[in-house]
Amino acid sequence: MTTHARDFSASIDPVKLDRLAEVVIKVGLQLQPGQDLVLTSSIPALPLTRRIVEQAYKAGAGLVTPIFSDDEITLARFRYGQDDSFDRAADWLYEGMAKAFSNNAARLAVRGDNPSLLSGQDPTKVARANKANSTAYQPALEKITGFDINWNIVAYPELAWAKQVFPGETDDVAVAKLADAIFAASRVDNDDPIGAWAAHNAALRQRTEWMNGHKFHALHFTGPGTDLTVGLADDHEWMGGASTAKNGVTCNPNIPTEEVFTTPHARRVSGHVSSTKPLSYQGTLIDEISVRFEEGRIVEARAAKGEDVLHKVLDTDEGARRLGEVALVPHSSPISRSGILFYNTLFDENASCHIALGQCYAKCFVNGDKLSRDEIAARGGNKSLIHIDWMIGSDKVDIDGLHEDGRRVPVMRKGEWA
Amino acid sequence: MTTHARDFSASIDPVKLDRLAEVVIKVGLQLQPGQDLVLTSSIPALPLTRRIVEQAYKAGAGLVTPIFSDDEITLARFRYGQDDSFDRAADWLYEGMAKAFSNNAARLAVRGDNPSLLSGQDPTKVARANKANSTAYQPALEKITGFDINWNIVAYPELAWAKQVFPGETDDVAVAKLADAIFAASRVDNDDPIGAWAAHNAALRQRTEWMNGHKFHALHFTGPGTDLTVGLADDHEWMGGASTAKNGVTCNPNIPTEEVFTTPHARRVSGHVSSTKPLSYQGTLIDEISVRFEEGRIVEARAAKGEDVLHKVLDTDEGARRLGEVALVPHSSPISRSGILFYNTLFDENASCHIALGQCYAKCFVNGDKLSRDEIAARGGNKSLIHIDWMIGSDKVDIDGLHEDGRRVPVMRKGEWA
Ligand SMILES: [Zn+2]
Ligand SMILES: [Zn+2]
Ligand SMILES: [Zn+2]
Ligand SMILES: [Zn+2]
Repeated sequence: MTTHARDFSASIDPVKLDRLAEVVIKVGLQLQPGQDLVLTSSIPALPLTRRIVEQAYKAGAGLVTPIFSDDEITLARFRYGQDDSFDRAADWLYEGMAKAFSNNAARLAVRGDNPSLLSGQDPTKVARANKANSTAYQPALEKITGFDINWNIVAYPELAWAKQVFPGETDDVAVAKLADAIFAASRVDNDDPIGAWAAHNAALRQRTEWMNGHKFHALHFTGPGTDLTVGLADDHEWMGGASTAKNGVTCNPNIPTEEVFTTPHARRVSGHVSSTKPLSYQGTLIDEISVRFEEGRIVEARAAKGEDVLHKVLDTDEGARRLGEVALVPHSSPISRSGILFYNTLFDENASCHIALGQCYAKCFVNGDKLSRDEIAARGGNKSLIHIDWMIGSDKVDIDGLHEDGRRVPVMRKGEWA
Repeated sequence: MTTHARDFSASIDPVKLDRLAEVVIKVGLQLQPGQDLVLTSSIPALPLTRRIVEQAYKAGAGLVTPIFSDDEITLARFRYGQDDSFDRAADWLYEGMAKAFSNNAARLAVRGDNPSLLSGQDPTKVARANKANSTAYQPALEKITGFDINWNIVAYPELAWAKQVFPGETDDVAVAKLADAIFAASRVDNDDPIGAWAAHNAALRQRTEWMNGHKFHALHFTGPGTDLTVGLADDHEWMGGASTAKNGVTCNPNIPTEEVFTTPHARRVSGHVSSTKPLSYQGTLIDEISVRFEEGRIVEARAAKGEDVLHKVLDTDEGARRLGEVALVPHSSPISRSGILFYNTLFDENASCHIALGQCYAKCFVNGDKLSRDEIAARGGNKSLIHIDWMIGSDKVDIDGLHEDGRRVPVMRKGEWA
């Protein structure tokens, strides 16, 4: 019961925290007057979450409903819960969230999770609980992945996370350093964060337009331990930065974001690939992943750390062994240049090219908002309960774009745009 | 943002806090193996709430789902929210809770609210927000008032509340004193709290059996500013201490509890009555209430403090002006003898005879679990969105039981059982 005992917000610049809250509402969500907001937050992130709620109401929000989680309560379940309770989830809560999204509520996640929270727990129970939660959350998640509504994920520097990122530092210094890294990556370390985001969104748009102009049939990744051909879905569209949800609101779903990304073809991926950064998945670290694909499907998977959990993840459903996203991030991205390994996908995926296992984003198709599930599947879009990004880029990786006639175009060389 | 800045749990005896958590699960809820639990808690109550969750899982709980509230976020709505948002509520969340209760989840509220949280806010907005919440919560509340499931309310000594109860003390001392008062009232200040509760429940059962033996037609309260006849509902049943919910679980819905109570007749209350303690209602203090009833209905209402809010409460709906509960508590009850005014109904109603405006408890009828809503209404049971207890007992109040033939039986004299 010690995690609640101290407050580290004194280590965090309140001016930048205010700016981050403003960016979440005005850039991340573009919350509309009268629009409701459903947010999830851990309790230690309250200093940011309270500011976000204030900004939301100042922007004319309808009703803001926060759902808080607590690490000790999460752990209590794994420590003391009966075995047969691990296939359960709070369906009524997730169904309610799906209903709120159907009524056009926006969605925000404030994340500062301890990347190793569940490392000491039984991986079978962790996997069962994750699967039950994913299943219950599926109707709500579909409104996110289908981009029905404006949504955003943002980060707060919680102590346990900060200590994992900066293990050599005192608690206060670790939190202060992680806070500064978050502020820099989220572009609030300047006097005009709204303007900085406008410029950044314009730069990302240039990249997506170049990729969309080429309409590549596949991408070919080569590097240490990697020789991978990722087919791109028919009618795929590259996206990046701000984009417009089906409810008409233009938002930035991730803060930070550096990636341009699209939907790979679930049945046209082949070769082998090695991860270049550790992956923190639901409180478990998975490191040094290497997998082999045949016809889009992972047929062999290893990991130096967390291999158990990796195998359980791959067994979630048929789509868990196939790709739902491929994303390009230059090795010189600000997050990459910071040299910090965040153990958090929101940051690490923006420091490196990556692929994601599982569910694709329907919006990454030409006229994606008008396609049915079957039409998306026919074009090669993958379907799964999970969506897990992992990092495969580095300054040693080259990428070529392949046209259907075999023509090759350099896309990246040594991790930089060619 | 100061309420989160310090942790006062060091002022609170951890052994007694553990016992309180155990009493909540084993006596308050009698949580069953495999049964789910939906709990609401404020964030500062985490030290108790975490212990309760641990006890719940140790007792074999299915899934425990906590829904946390934060005072600063509640205030942000009133400070910055748009006017037309105050008739809104998170329907999806309340509907979900009702659904969970339909699936036999137990219900717990951990309360430590600042009694004056909303005192500085616009009473019209407070009333509108309360009404919207009550309306949305109604389907869930019906499962509580109908006693479909086992439920419980328990208290945690939060700072703002402690400072209002002990205004002359330092923060730490105030919290420590309120903690001790809660522990004493909740019968965990001894080595066998489970046994103490068994004895207490037996004593309350004796009182309810005596009252039920008499089957009074009405009660007549006399005292300073009070001359009130409260008709009792046809087939009313007095209850107190442990009782059995429709799901078969015997629980103690309030910790502490000292009252024996039943359902008055909504159309047979007449005379005038004055409150003997201030009432804290949803963050507003209402004090020195005096009202006059005609044929069950309040036709005149005054208060020295909070009269605005009182009038708005009475205007909630037709049933808000009629009684849903009458309860007897001796002036010598331990909570009364402590001499502490708690500004919290859970405690103050157990220091004093009281009446409640609004919704009745269906269980306070003979075979109440089998009666339809119409049958309850025909017997005089009241229906309303609200249920607000206020205190009318003191050592100056006498109570007679009236039989239909006019025969009088002394029930209480100078606040004590006659
Ligand atoms: Zn990505
Ligand atoms: Zn992704
Ligand atoms: Zn009562
Ligand atoms: Zn009551």
